[in-house]
Amino acid sequence: MTMLLVGNSRTDEMVGDLTTLSADALVAGGCAAQRMIWFAGDGDILVLPGKPEDAYLEYVTTLTGTRPETLTILVPPPGLLGGDILTPDRLGDRGFQDELRTVLAARPVDRVLAVYKDAAIADLATAVGIENALPGHRFSAQAGDALINSKAAFRAVAAGADVPTAPGGVVTRPEQAEDAINALLGRGHDVMVKQEFHGGGFGNEIVTRVAGVRPAGAQHVVVLPDGPSVHRYVAQRWAWLTGGRDHRLVVERYFAESTTVYAEFVIGDDGIDLVGVGEILMEPVAVGEIVPAQSIGPDVRDRLVAAGRRLCEPIRVLGYRGNISTDAILTPDGEIVFTETNGRITGSTHLHTVVGGRLLGDGYRDRRVIMERGGWAVPSFTGGLEQLTAAGLAYDPATRTGVILTSGYLPTDGSVVYCVVAEDLASVRNYERRLADLLTGASA
Amino acid sequence: MTMLLVGNSRTDEMVGDLTTLSADALVAGGCAAQRMIWFAGDGDILVLPGKPEDAYLEYVTTLTGTRPETLTILVPPPGLLGGDILTPDRLGDRGFQDELRTVLAARPVDRVLAVYKDAAIADLATAVGIENALPGHRFSAQAGDALINSKAAFRAVAAGADVPTAPGGVVTRPEQAEDAINALLGRGHDVMVKQEFHGGGFGNEIVTRVAGVRPAGAQHVVVLPDGPSVHRYVAQRWAWLTGGRDHRLVVERYFAESTTVYAEFVIGDDGIDLVGVGEILMEPVAVGEIVPAQSIGPDVRDRLVAAGRRLCEPIRVLGYRGNISTDAILTPDGEIVFTETNGRITGSTHLHTVVGGRLLGDGYRDRRVIMERGGWAVPSFTGGLEQLTAAGLAYDPATRTGVILTSGYLPTDGSVVYCVVAEDLASVRNYERRLADLLTGASA
Repeated sequence: MTMLLVGNSRTDEMVGDLTTLSADALVAGGCAAQRMIWFAGDGDILVLPGKPEDAYLEYVTTLTGTRPETLTILVPPPGLLGGDILTPDRLGDRGFQDELRTVLAARPVDRVLAVYKDAAIADLATAVGIENALPGHRFSAQAGDALINSKAAFRAVAAGADVPTAPGGVVTRPEQAEDAINALLGRGHDVMVKQEFHGGGFGNEIVTRVAGVRPAGAQHVVVLPDGPSVHRYVAQRWAWLTGGRDHRLVVERYFAESTTVYAEFVIGDDGIDLVGVGEILMEPVAVGEIVPAQSIGPDVRDRLVAAGRRLCEPIRVLGYRGNISTDAILTPDGEIVFTETNGRITGSTHLHTVVGGRLLGDGYRDRRVIMERGGWAVPSFTGGLEQLTAAGLAYDPATRTGVILTSGYLPTDGSVVYCVVAEDLASVRNYERRLADLLTGASA
Repeated sequence: MTMLLVGNSRTDEMVGDLTTLSADALVAGGCAAQRMIWFAGDGDILVLPGKPEDAYLEYVTTLTGTRPETLTILVPPPGLLGGDILTPDRLGDRGFQDELRTVLAARPVDRVLAVYKDAAIADLATAVGIENALPGHRFSAQAGDALINSKAAFRAVAAGADVPTAPGGVVTRPEQAEDAINALLGRGHDVMVKQEFHGGGFGNEIVTRVAGVRPAGAQHVVVLPDGPSVHRYVAQRWAWLTGGRDHRLVVERYFAESTTVYAEFVIGDDGIDLVGVGEILMEPVAVGEIVPAQSIGPDVRDRLVAAGRRLCEPIRVLGYRGNISTDAILTPDGEIVFTETNGRITGSTHLHTVVGGRLLGDGYRDRRVIMERGGWAVPSFTGGLEQLTAAGLAYDPATRTGVILTSGYLPTDGSVVYCVVAEDLASVRNYERRLADLLTGASA
């Protein structure tokens, strides 16, 4: 099977208005896009925002067993926001589309795998004549994926599927937001306000009456002791809360000290298949994750998967096709409360399908714990790799243990994303300590 | 069965931002709300924006056989927009809710029938403890009905259900709108642009390259001969096109000289039942309708109902419950092209369930043609009725023919909405002529 892989790792419906992204955020988005190389097999075509670093391309394909010389990598010319991320205007570039058409003439593709299937992706598939290779094309071409990624629409879908969500609602006006916040605060709850379109907790804020709440899933805790302070907060923050575009706002109870988990599925024409279950590390926004989730037992996992599958059913009937993460928290009381769905290639997909599926394989994936985190400071991609190798920490295909560098080098903060593969959580923690020692020079 | 009927005939999701409605539009909305009396049976509770005119209440209940003295009519205090329509703040009024609770204590209701089930209705049901009587409460409480009434979400739902829509798409940015309009114009098509939330064609405009297109389903035709004029139009009209709230915009091919039809259904827990099929009179926006549709044959009707039902299926799975109209046009080429769904008590529901169901009944509904139109100028409600009676045109329950005044008197233009019931279309037209004669005094 030949695939066309598109690294459009940032879209309006993933992170909000792209034009508001900082220069660093754009660079980080471009770096994330290169992760699509993990999914590539021999003969695949990749559309990426920039040429991957040779060392990264070689590293990834060595681990996946893909021959890099068989890959075709296309990079559309820079667009309105420059060359960091694959914006819709770049995907619509005539010269790029001609180039892609030429490539496709010689190498037809069976499947399009894009990070996010917005209208730009659907239009591209139409423009180059491969609509049939994009699962759910009809639905995506009419902006259907926005419904699957809207935190507002999510609450209605979950309600209809009888899947538990946090008490709260969806509002469109400041006065409604104020009422909804006051109602929850009045019942003694903390509150989370959530932008309709964003990711990783960056579009959320926690509102509380008294200081001391530990945030998870949001960067900030805002202390609003009384009605007037709620009024001022909503008035001053309204443009941000509505994504600068009058989007709808979710107001719901915040459950402190919860564990963030997810069940990811693939929705196909014939059914809903589980991709995997994981646990997100919130410090206080998403900084990494553990697969499989370690903080929940088999009973909770089963309930999570069953309810997640129930959420996927109406979404399948609607016409969405592709990966979807059903996200939830496990509250201190042991309740599973769903928080959103993300219909896209998520930050977890490669851990399940590539690290778990291709690198570990059926013989090992159930006997390994995978932990991915960002922010390991290295001199360069190659430099980081050399450090790992010198310290005996690099991933070893023979033992199926060690540290994998999952992302390329991020120049803005000189870091890479790494992924520890070990027999159990204790061994993962041990790897983490040894990585930290590398940073401080303690191992030298 | 005791019902709570709520006449919230204008909501943001039906007609766009309520605060932009003119004084006349507010009055008209209040007048339309009184139509809920048609649905009332003995012992029902009505929440209306104002007290109905005695003559209207007596007239309607005489025809439906409901004893008016058994009805309880509640009118919440005026709200932010005054007393014409039932705005969310009026439905949330504490005093009104206390009053309703008292009424409900003595007379429990089995069902809530609101014109539109937005969060204000769901919250009211919760506040007075009758959630279980509101079909689809969970879904409506999380703003789910917005998805069923969004013209943007509609296109994705239709695509997923493989129900035909006009070529086009959903856009969020002016440059996307421009591209989409130019693409359709470039293929030689006329274009309709549609606000995400509005009704009756009032949120639509037709865009064409050359003058002479006859509008239907929109008030205006805008002639834009070239690219620069499209650019200026989109830039100048963007706030209006996006409902003043950055809503999504539908851009699709306009099919001139089409017939506007619909199939209305009720979605329940156990299935999807057809309410009826009708034809909307567009001059150039909705001014009335004919039931059953006269301009389509049995084959087209069957295709309309089958595809409409296919549209309802994912909406049923999502969790919406209640009336839903699936609207379409029959193009000059004989294609059925769906245009939107309206999840609410529509302007047609009473024609099918009350006029067709209660007044005509099974023995007659298939042997009568019903035509409703607005704008018959009368001195007063009673005065209009007297004119009808004097001219021998008033509806006669014995023959199941004649003219019914379906709405109360609209003071802003001194008119009523009337409904002709006759054996066939020719007889309907004959009634129309005689009504026109009454106006001009030709019958005197």
